[in-house]
Amino acid sequence: MVEFLKLVTPEVAKDYFYSFVDKFENKTEIIETKCALGRVVALPIIASENIPAFPRSTVDGFAVLSKDTFGVSENLPGLFKVIGEVVMGQPAEIEIRSGEAAVIHTGGMLPKGADAVVMIENSQLTFPGEIEIMKSVGHNENVILTGEDVKEGVEVFTQGTLLRPGDIGALMSLGITKLSVFKLPRVGIVSSGDEIVDPEQKINVGQVRDINSYCLSALVQSHGGIPNRYGIVPDDKKKLTEVMKTAFVENDLIIVTAGSSASVRDLTAEVIDTIGKPGVLVHGVNVKPGKPTILAICDGKPIIGLPGNPVSAYVIASIFVVPLLRKIRGEKYFEKRQKLKGILTINVASLAGREDWIPVIVQEDMESGIKTIEPIFYKSNLIFSIIRADGFLRIPPDITGYSARTEVEIILI
Amino acid sequence: MVEFLKLVTPEVAKDYFYSFVDKFENKTEIIETKCALGRVVALPIIASENIPAFPRSTVDGFAVLSKDTFGVSENLPGLFKVIGEVVMGQPAEIEIRSGEAAVIHTGGMLPKGADAVVMIENSQLTFPGEIEIMKSVGHNENVILTGEDVKEGVEVFTQGTLLRPGDIGALMSLGITKLSVFKLPRVGIVSSGDEIVDPEQKINVGQVRDINSYCLSALVQSHGGIPNRYGIVPDDKKKLTEVMKTAFVENDLIIVTAGSSASVRDLTAEVIDTIGKPGVLVHGVNVKPGKPTILAICDGKPIIGLPGNPVSAYVIASIFVVPLLRKIRGEKYFEKRQKLKGILTINVASLAGREDWIPVIVQEDMESGIKTIEPIFYKSNLIFSIIRADGFLRIPPDITGYSARTEVEIILI
Repeated sequence: MVEFLKLVTPEVAKDYFYSFVDKFENKTEIIETKCALGRVVALPIIASENIPAFPRSTVDGFAVLSKDTFGVSENLPGLFKVIGEVVMGQPAEIEIRSGEAAVIHTGGMLPKGADAVVMIENSQLTFPGEIEIMKSVGHNENVILTGEDVKEGVEVFTQGTLLRPGDIGALMSLGITKLSVFKLPRVGIVSSGDEIVDPEQKINVGQVRDINSYCLSALVQSHGGIPNRYGIVPDDKKKLTEVMKTAFVENDLIIVTAGSSASVRDLTAEVIDTIGKPGVLVHGVNVKPGKPTILAICDGKPIIGLPGNPVSAYVIASIFVVPLLRKIRGEKYFEKRQKLKGILTINVASLAGREDWIPVIVQEDMESGIKTIEPIFYKSNLIFSIIRADGFLRIPPDITGYSARTEVEIILI
Repeated sequence: MVEFLKLVTPEVAKDYFYSFVDKFENKTEIIETKCALGRVVALPIIASENIPAFPRSTVDGFAVLSKDTFGVSENLPGLFKVIGEVVMGQPAEIEIRSGEAAVIHTGGMLPKGADAVVMIENSQLTFPGEIEIMKSVGHNENVILTGEDVKEGVEVFTQGTLLRPGDIGALMSLGITKLSVFKLPRVGIVSSGDEIVDPEQKINVGQVRDINSYCLSALVQSHGGIPNRYGIVPDDKKKLTEVMKTAFVENDLIIVTAGSSASVRDLTAEVIDTIGKPGVLVHGVNVKPGKPTILAICDGKPIIGLPGNPVSAYVIASIFVVPLLRKIRGEKYFEKRQKLKGILTINVASLAGREDWIPVIVQEDMESGIKTIEPIFYKSNLIFSIIRADGFLRIPPDITGYSARTEVEIILI
């Protein structure tokens, strides 16, 4: 029998929850590298060849034996016989002997015998077929050696790497045009509440439009998940169970935003407990906003219950859903977030024992480069106040606030 | 006749180039809000109604007249008659008079007469239909007023806003299910060079695989452009002109990566000048890496010539192509980049008059939270060294370097 935690700190809630999620097994698929931007590497990638595959010049100039240039200078140039040109894209068939040089372009293959390249700026044509070299070069100067970029057999990408544009190029340089990545997690999104209507529909007095489904879908999408919306469910146990069971079968992670009232929030937990074992693990987190958060695992799949209030739902989704999503899509550093330091403009207070997440606006003084962090004070439910936020300031449970004019670090959205 | 600038600083190059790009007219289209994540608002969006449309409770409790609670306390509770319950999603049909209260849930509509809500925690049931209230509430306490989130007629999104997840929710709250956005710019990518082969093909000695097309496509994609690859063109004026003309017709922005040698680089500029007027504006920028960069405008469309070296191409694309792409897709703050401050680990030197962009790795000490910035020293062409970078350190032309242990600011990738 697993324990069920009530009103714990976000840190405790997360650790407990993750101890179950760690058993999650990611599915993989093979895709084309050119479509792999933003995907996560599922199997370690080993270089099957050296890059570059042959020694290459890094400049335009003349391939020579470096020892031939020893002691040359502007006053005492060395004379070399030009025996040919390295053609781009073909094996260098010339062989350089002492006293000889070959024309070579940037990226061209260093011919046999040569061990350095003299830059064209440090040479001058004297007679046709002859050049003077005015500057000595060392061994391997202006050359990249075979395997200098990557050596055959080296692991170039570890499992869990999120692929960025440069990585796509690097994979292509090795001729890796297909690779195994983790499948994109499907995320079921269920919105509940008797007062909620679809934004497409006409609204009556007392009703509000569904913000959560669309806001959370976009959040899921922006962190590499596939959102599946299951519409709006009234506050009814039978109907909610039905929709939740469908969403459970069709997705890897399920988010449900509860109706607003306390009784309805308990309904969500009851329904989750019928879906699978162990069920609800955490019910209530000591965080503002977002106290009624539910964290559950049903038969190995995570289910998160978010507050119905769109502001709370958005904040809690940023704290709990985003790292979880990145974890189940196989990212190694799933908790790594972009952060920023700045000077707090005003005092912010928090209750001892409670963790607060305060939306903030970052402003940068163009002259001084100083960044200020301005907290947004908002009432529950005011979505327009939070959309201006650049990030969140976290006030941990053991701190009762931060003073104005101190440096704080925020998590960027 | 326009001027043609040679070997200027990136700042001068960019300002001159942008003076032509400012005339660029963005195309717009109407799309569904639910598909608008990451798109840019083309027409200012005005709230056509108040949000909320009716006064709402922010807590679970009892709607009352605040003046009735004046002076009540735990020792001296006030007695109220409960005359009904506000049903979620329906207009509150009850009217509260002095001495009366109605059950209300979070998000419920405040009934007529009431001007505040007492939290359920501050009340207790005495007889059926009667409650005691132990804490007074002020006017409008625990209530959000009509239009408190957004007032009808207010501009909620300006032209040029990049839509984030919260924005999608905010648009939906107003019932805006469709909107006008700028079209995604189509970016033609041409790779040239006799030594370059497609990564799908078998490679011979002296040849290298095409990195640039794929790396740049991914970069374009990650900044909201639609990349169109035009394959690999040999270093041949006729063939390059042909492909460039096709790419020019089919795209809003064209990127061409030149072959490696100096002669071939000039070929690119010659070809660009045949495409349209005024043609090449900047040929050569005093930046490392990326000196051979070409900036051109042909009949109103920007064309950028990048160095063939994948590392240079990637760096220059990050400096010039990314902001340009964001500009032509209509973003208002197209030059805004995420930055980070840290302590430089070693001395970095730069030539006076030249701007340097150095790839760097950020490391954070878990204990102290101190971030260090470690420059990556790399040779030309080594793509694997640059893919580990977290960002770039810019050394402006008027500075000859930074000392170890000083604080520097980097631009995050």
